[in-house]
Amino acid sequence: MSRADHPALVALDWGTSSLRAWLLAGPGKAVDTRSAPWGIMHLPEGGFSGALQSLCGDWLQQYPCLPVIASGMVGSAQGWLEVPYVGTPAASVGVAAGLRHAALPDGRNVAIVPGVLQDNAHPNVMRGEETQVFGAWELLQDPPGKTGKTLMVLPGTHSKWVTVEQGHITRFMTAMTGELYAVLRRHSLLGRLMVTSEEFDYTAFERGLEESQRSQGVMFSLFSARTLGLARRLEGAQLGDYLSGLLIGHEIREARLAFAAELAADYPLPVIGTDELRHRYHIALGWHGISVHEGDFSQATQAGLWHIARNAGWIT
Amino acid sequence: MSRADHPALVALDWGTSSLRAWLLAGPGKAVDTRSAPWGIMHLPEGGFSGALQSLCGDWLQQYPCLPVIASGMVGSAQGWLEVPYVGTPAASVGVAAGLRHAALPDGRNVAIVPGVLQDNAHPNVMRGEETQVFGAWELLQDPPGKTGKTLMVLPGTHSKWVTVEQGHITRFMTAMTGELYAVLRRHSLLGRLMVTSEEFDYTAFERGLEESQRSQGVMFSLFSARTLGLARRLEGAQLGDYLSGLLIGHEIREARLAFAAELAADYPLPVIGTDELRHRYHIALGWHGISVHEGDFSQATQAGLWHIARNAGWIT
Repeated sequence: MSRADHPALVALDWGTSSLRAWLLAGPGKAVDTRSAPWGIMHLPEGGFSGALQSLCGDWLQQYPCLPVIASGMVGSAQGWLEVPYVGTPAASVGVAAGLRHAALPDGRNVAIVPGVLQDNAHPNVMRGEETQVFGAWELLQDPPGKTGKTLMVLPGTHSKWVTVEQGHITRFMTAMTGELYAVLRRHSLLGRLMVTSEEFDYTAFERGLEESQRSQGVMFSLFSARTLGLARRLEGAQLGDYLSGLLIGHEIREARLAFAAELAADYPLPVIGTDELRHRYHIALGWHGISVHEGDFSQATQAGLWHIARNAGWIT
Repeated sequence: MSRADHPALVALDWGTSSLRAWLLAGPGKAVDTRSAPWGIMHLPEGGFSGALQSLCGDWLQQYPCLPVIASGMVGSAQGWLEVPYVGTPAASVGVAAGLRHAALPDGRNVAIVPGVLQDNAHPNVMRGEETQVFGAWELLQDPPGKTGKTLMVLPGTHSKWVTVEQGHITRFMTAMTGELYAVLRRHSLLGRLMVTSEEFDYTAFERGLEESQRSQGVMFSLFSARTLGLARRLEGAQLGDYLSGLLIGHEIREARLAFAAELAADYPLPVIGTDELRHRYHIALGWHGISVHEGDFSQATQAGLWHIARNAGWIT
């Protein structure tokens, strides 16, 4: 193992539904990777420290002095240790200063990254996405020039649209797109006609985008995911992707109003998320004439955790 | 019992969650009223005919020649007998011509009212609301003059906004407001901070209305029902009414776009629904500067069933 490959950090992405772990060497390169379905709501016996020991015990033993850092819902009231939010504008150095430490049984510490709070008349919160934003900013090969201002989107259960200025998170909003899709599909009348399909139906997805743009808004367009099925204009297997297109379309339509200034700067939009969501958002953003950044942000979380640890002075 | 009080019709409002029955004398006056929680998804033993026998067996026995009529989801694919929709423009005489008959074990018939289908590029359906609309039209003391065109709103699980021209249903749209509220409260993260409260919180409801008007749309405003709680701007007991105001506010905001022509006519809007929903919509419509019709539409269903039966030639 060369010096460059020598592990310098154990980095954890610990969310509601899963735990991902990386053994990172400089500069943020993953030497080893692990994951388990042990989100903060689904912990194994032994709780947080037990989960960490089970997944990464060998790393901790082999490298007894390596710092451990974690971001995500692990720092929420339902997590391992509630870490107070850092306010906007939030830089990674401020987030590093807000790290709090949970202790392992052997006395070793796990540093937990604080979320970010926008504390104005329209409060908003994130936990975990701040780390991805800082990581994506580091990964930009071509950071925005003159104004240094860009918008990033992190699609998911709760999509985040984040304004970043010279690496600072200055403003953000949350669209409950993923959760709305899930609860409507599972628990509302709309799910009744839907048939599960493995294949992505481009036509149905695009019809959803069109309907979102044509309609007056979400309230009066949702029911079309039922009536188009009843009227046999869409098959049961198409209705899920239609609803997906409808909701993502509405999200982008509203984002165009909320972030008009950022979008007018015409810097291509980094989209940070799973491959499947990135695919859907690429189509939908393109449909709206918004150009998407071509960079690879799949390592944004690791890069962000590395960057925060560096700002905390643990690695150089 | 005077001749005017002599029963002429057994009228049933048979929906998803309940069955209501009236013994009606001319002109649509209720001589007796019954109800049971036997919606089409919650039938007692004996199914549809058993439910009817249990609730109204004495009426049927005492008046063996009285016609029986039913509207609502009882005519859907999941109901007693699937009754094909009548297309728009739909008049009560056309709906009467579309009645289909389900047979009771003794050979007696129950006439089931068809729903209405708007079969264009943006299909829409109703089952039960057509009867309320026809009834409300009959109850109008001051039907709209020159154009004969008015808008009616039927708030509920699936709110219907209906354009009525000289008693014909010409156009309508559906907002899934009530169901959206229920699934978000029960199954999404938004419900977590909510505390059940018996009292209506006017302040919280109005803040929801304000947010709906200020925001870009539903997608980016829903999360405020969580963050205002996290930031302690609203108490847990207020969050439900805040979300209610937010959703109803968005519904009306979109309706103002969808039915701009109807609303410009400035005929006061009949609101047909439960007292609780009417109260909420009165506040929200007033907040939007839309005047509400002062008539009493609480008997709209009975009046509609009576009117359809009269058009079918059963009563004079």
